Amino acid sequence: MTTITGRTRLVAVLGDPVVQVRAPALLNRLLAGDGVDVVVVPVHVRRDDLGTVVRGLQATGNLAGLLVTVPHKAEVLRYADVRSEAAELAGAANALRRLDDGSWHADNFDGAGFVAGLVQAGHPPDGLHVALVGTGGAGSAIAPALLTAGVGHLSLHDVEEARAKKVAERLSAYWPGRITVGTELGAADGVVNATPLGMRPEDPLPFDPAELRPDTFVADIIMKPRETELLRRAAELGHPVLPGEPMLVNQMDLYRAYFGF
Amino acid sequence: MTTITGRTRLVAVLGDPVVQVRAPALLNRLLAGDGVDVVVVPVHVRRDDLGTVVRGLQATGNLAGLLVTVPHKAEVLRYADVRSEAAELAGAANALRRLDDGSWHADNFDGAGFVAGLVQAGHPPDGLHVALVGTGGAGSAIAPALLTAGVGHLSLHDVEEARAKKVAERLSAYWPGRITVGTELGAADGVVNATPLGMRPEDPLPFDPAELRPDTFVADIIMKPRETELLRRAAELGHPVLPGEPMLVNQMDLYRAYFGF
Repeated sequence: MTTITGRTRLVAVLGDPVVQVRAPALLNRLLAGDGVDVVVVPVHVRRDDLGTVVRGLQATGNLAGLLVTVPHKAEVLRYADVRSEAAELAGAANALRRLDDGSWHADNFDGAGFVAGLVQAGHPPDGLHVALVGTGGAGSAIAPALLTAGVGHLSLHDVEEARAKKVAERLSAYWPGRITVGTELGAADGVVNATPLGMRPEDPLPFDPAELRPDTFVADIIMKPRETELLRRAAELGHPVLPGEPMLVNQMDLYRAYFGF
Repeated sequence: MTTITGRTRLVAVLGDPVVQVRAPALLNRLLAGDGVDVVVVPVHVRRDDLGTVVRGLQATGNLAGLLVTVPHKAEVLRYADVRSEAAELAGAANALRRLDDGSWHADNFDGAGFVAGLVQAGHPPDGLHVALVGTGGAGSAIAPALLTAGVGHLSLHDVEEARAKKVAERLSAYWPGRITVGTELGAADGVVNATPLGMRPEDPLPFDPAELRPDTFVADIIMKPRETELLRRAAELGHPVLPGEPMLVNQMDLYRAYFGF
């Protein structure tokens, strides 16, 4: 890592908890390698304190930007004056920066990071039928990114069907006729788990990979464990599988471009 | 430096400007050497934003503490619930930490750091007559530390004599009969420059070392340049001289003890 001096600028990563965030280690290594005098630090913020902490950071002269993780991604939009289309469509942001006029801009790179990982893994989604299981925070960011990347048909699945319907309705205004809710998974070319199921060993599967066609890829956004029970079963059945890590790793370059370093 | 992860705690150094602060580099090296998972970062705060930034930092769960430099040392006392005697006597703080009950404590190590440097340099001040030139922020912190260390006679000097008188009056309540204002420098065993004169090449001398007895030590709190014009002239005249650096360096251990790492 680079030596921190009085000239070093800061990026704060906001979360609750924050101990699990990997952006500081990943980004600091990249920045130090390129001689960029910016350091990324974790900032533990409880829900009730989000406004106080964000306002304080926004008043900090040498703050280069904010990264935001669970549970603050939706709420942090309150502290942005301008939102990117990705943030607007996701209803959530994971990065904020100060514009030249002093106002604050919010963006969301979760979806773009996920799609970049798909493409790298040899599964460019354009023209495919992709099923997205889970339409909470992560799913809401991934859905518009898949549509932007040209999926032919996006089916949304959620145990709270009303939530999936709401996301479908919102996105259909931009991509009419391409989104359905609750279609059979057996028709999909690829299925994405965007639920938190699989983080804990006792979690049920978010869906049964036995329902899928044999060539359907199975992607999981869960990073810990690296091989979820879902991916293990899907791999046993011969499906191409994609772990969650690339979604995060691919965002590092997107963040750097966004913050301008 | 240590690798920053989500578990790393933070110390923020507040100043305006902040580019000159040396605590991040000095403390981070010591902490990394001892495997302490804390990182010290500069935080640039304008006067008007001090409250907003301090409140935000105080609401940050992984903040280990604050260090404070010019021009915020007096104003930051507003954000402390409890003050040490050193902070109270100086009317200023340069370190704040969260107590176990969640309240905030302010302390000031400028004076103690200066005195530790004097002792290290072979000039323990107890029983001596010390003249302190400059009774602003730095002088106000150094004066009570010299008295605590047992100086026999402290004479205070300031171009604004009213300011020196105020400090003398306040401290005389604690140390009656030991403080005078504007006594002859020729009587002193040691003289301390606590004015900012000497930072810029065009500055006049804060006092004329030719007035002093030949064995009187001359200490300067200015760190840049390391050898001020005052110290250069005093050394030429054969006086023992002490640069400003030890005052800062000696505070690093005091900060660590204060923050508990």
